[in-house]
Amino acid sequence: MNDEIRRALDTLFAADSELYANRGFARRIGFGKRPALVNIDLANAWTRPGYAFSCEGMETIIPAVQALLTVFRAKGLPVVYTTTAYDVTDGPNTDMGLWHYKIPAQVLQAGSDTVAIDDRIAPMEGEQLIVKKRASAFHGTYLAGFLRANNVDTVVVTGVTMSACVRNTVEDAIADGFKPIVVREAVDDRIQGAVAWNLFDVDAKFGDVEPLDTVLQHLQCNEA
Amino acid sequence: MNDEIRRALDTLFAADSELYANRGFARRIGFGKRPALVNIDLANAWTRPGYAFSCEGMETIIPAVQALLTVFRAKGLPVVYTTTAYDVTDGPNTDMGLWHYKIPAQVLQAGSDTVAIDDRIAPMEGEQLIVKKRASAFHGTYLAGFLRANNVDTVVVTGVTMSACVRNTVEDAIADGFKPIVVREAVDDRIQGAVAWNLFDVDAKFGDVEPLDTVLQHLQCNEA
Amino acid sequence: MNDEIRRALDTLFAADSELYANRGFARRIGFGKRPALVNIDLANAWTRPGYAFSCEGMETIIPAVQALLTVFRAKGLPVVYTTTAYDVTDGPNTDMGLWHYKIPAQVLQAGSDTVAIDDRIAPMEGEQLIVKKRASAFHGTYLAGFLRANNVDTVVVTGVTMSACVRNTVEDAIADGFKPIVVREAVDDRIQGAVAWNLFDVDAKFGDVEPLDTVLQHLQCNEA
Amino acid sequence: MNDEIRRALDTLFAADSELYANRGFARRIGFGKRPALVNIDLANAWTRPGYAFSCEGMETIIPAVQALLTVFRAKGLPVVYTTTAYDVTDGPNTDMGLWHYKIPAQVLQAGSDTVAIDDRIAPMEGEQLIVKKRASAFHGTYLAGFLRANNVDTVVVTGVTMSACVRNTVEDAIADGFKPIVVREAVDDRIQGAVAWNLFDVDAKFGDVEPLDTVLQHLQCNEA
Repeated sequence: MNDEIRRALDTLFAADSELYANRGFARRIGFGKRPALVNIDLANAWTRPGYAFSCEGMETIIPAVQALLTVFRAKGLPVVYTTTAYDVTDGPNTDMGLWHYKIPAQVLQAGSDTVAIDDRIAPMEGEQLIVKKRASAFHGTYLAGFLRANNVDTVVVTGVTMSACVRNTVEDAIADGFKPIVVREAVDDRIQGAVAWNLFDVDAKFGDVEPLDTVLQHLQCNEA
Repeated sequence: MNDEIRRALDTLFAADSELYANRGFARRIGFGKRPALVNIDLANAWTRPGYAFSCEGMETIIPAVQALLTVFRAKGLPVVYTTTAYDVTDGPNTDMGLWHYKIPAQVLQAGSDTVAIDDRIAPMEGEQLIVKKRASAFHGTYLAGFLRANNVDTVVVTGVTMSACVRNTVEDAIADGFKPIVVREAVDDRIQGAVAWNLFDVDAKFGDVEPLDTVLQHLQCNEA
Repeated sequence: MNDEIRRALDTLFAADSELYANRGFARRIGFGKRPALVNIDLANAWTRPGYAFSCEGMETIIPAVQALLTVFRAKGLPVVYTTTAYDVTDGPNTDMGLWHYKIPAQVLQAGSDTVAIDDRIAPMEGEQLIVKKRASAFHGTYLAGFLRANNVDTVVVTGVTMSACVRNTVEDAIADGFKPIVVREAVDDRIQGAVAWNLFDVDAKFGDVEPLDTVLQHLQCNEA
Repeated sequence: MNDEIRRALDTLFAADSELYANRGFARRIGFGKRPALVNIDLANAWTRPGYAFSCEGMETIIPAVQALLTVFRAKGLPVVYTTTAYDVTDGPNTDMGLWHYKIPAQVLQAGSDTVAIDDRIAPMEGEQLIVKKRASAFHGTYLAGFLRANNVDTVVVTGVTMSACVRNTVEDAIADGFKPIVVREAVDDRIQGAVAWNLFDVDAKFGDVEPLDTVLQHLQCNEA
């Protein structure tokens, strides 16, 4: 984004923030007692160049997620990855449902290297890799049941894209009873502006957007 | 929004649209065979001034929804309304779940005039009024089961807000297998910019944003 | 049931229990740290004579539920009631979905005395009454989100019927990550045998069936 | 089951059926316009001897499912298989959720031959194989969204076990708006009696239990 557009968005967000403050929106939800790390779609189709789904910002996201993984693993807290992939990408029996009518889902072939998690942040044994078919990590998956059975009350969310899978995961998380914390440096998108406006909406209504340092500090200090 | 901000957003959306076109996003999903009208949170707390939840644009939304109701009713197609309301707004047993940690949900008392559908577009006997607890009309409600049992394959969505309940309903609709059509003149928000950027995201990835005339014309011409 | 049938069922269950023991089924799930009481469909249509839905055993269920209510309320633990009721019982727009094709759901008019909770065990202010449309208390309702937001990990289940709403609620509870405890004296049905065989299946695979005394004793002794 | 037990159950079911007939239960739901075949857990752990999960009746189930597959495939109707399998069977991060507290779920290792579909009825390319974590084929899976996107209104259900995964799938199917038809010869269990009593409950309240011939005849004659 050029400076002019950035300034225009900032002006807009400032006015909107004032309205929200006056109306009682954009409160803090905070951390609960037991967080899980949920990394959304950090697979090659999103993290590497050259795909329809390729996103920006991996030079920031990858180290941020590495830092989070180190802390979550050290504390024995649950780590979940998602990828989006389809077994049948042709004909009416596709597990793409209706989504290919809007986006190029047909390139996300299950089992291919395209949809494998980026090996710079690969899952370790004992960590969950959920193959989802829709935007939200909760929709049509066992994530909510897994988290509740594991006594988790908070989800720390990273990944891409802010305008679809990350945002929709956060919306479902709070609806299902989990406190969502979005790590500012660990999310991105493929289009300009989408990070800014979606983080704005999320922070106002669905979850707290926090810098990486705040999240790491909280994790290192608390009992969880 | 002033002209400068509007121009900045337009510049941003133009660049983003070009990327989406090159990548194969922002396809058309179109109408199916049997649509339902789903009116999101057009209750007094959102449609009338003076509430924390009050929204803009009712001078456009109300007549647009009236026009849609006339056609859906004439054709005997299903009409669904939602409102968001809570029975217990105090203490740990609240049906607000975690949402009051972000937004002023506690003012939405179930059974009050505050959460009753605006009488300019009141439900008729035999139409569904779903009292939801979360942003999406599908989350924690019987909406998906109702629509499938009724052989519906398309949802025409109106109401507020674009940055929460309307958008989240559209996201769940396509995930659950229903084609979402958002009526441009029949949706709004309470903050500036949120309609523009959320319609942009929705049209790129989750459903078609169409002008009222196109929707009315389709309904009047097709067999449904 | 006459003695001959009772003996035949006991013989059957004994053989089945032996197979389950050899195979590693019918384990104990136990109580978690924070239980909620979930009373299924103890509304007049089920608890009083003269309805299509009327059930047996209220002379035992009502005092058992009263005893449970006393303890849950004294401890400030969450109490949830369900009833099953429909707003539109005619035509394609019915919220009965497909269920009226199997059972006489059309008599369960929302807002009527028929579907009101039996006043011998009426909800108190601040307790949840969930109007469900399907068998399970979780299906198409906000129950799972409510329980997770409230930090509940265990559901103590009472009510009717064992062959439908109670059993299906228990199945969903464990799937959603809540430990189900069915109170033996607080559940029943309207047909002979259904309590016996459904408790048998539940105890083998979905939740623990426990006598009222054991449940009360646990509640009184533990920290929750 | 010996003759005495069989007679006792028949006496019980006859009395129960009379009550249901008088009360308006056990109605027929019938076929809709577009069925899908849903084969529950016909993987080696259930279809072959020697496993904790091994079931009876494969000499009847396998040819019945083969006959159904032939017709569904000839008509180009959707075919779905499920298996139940877990990636992490140790420690708190298990995708077994809470189920291993009741049943020996830990033997169902994802990717193993144990949980592969029996090769006598193996999926063909373009057919869905859903790896579920819970009893119901709908719970925590994309099945409902897949079926609705594919315009399916009816599910023909086969497999094992009647006392858990088949029954729970049928309960969710009708709740989600799909007409369930259970094929009498194509379902079984591992314990005596469970087929009889679960088919009885299902037919009374959740779906139609039909002989294979009736189902095949319907499929061959209708337009679907």
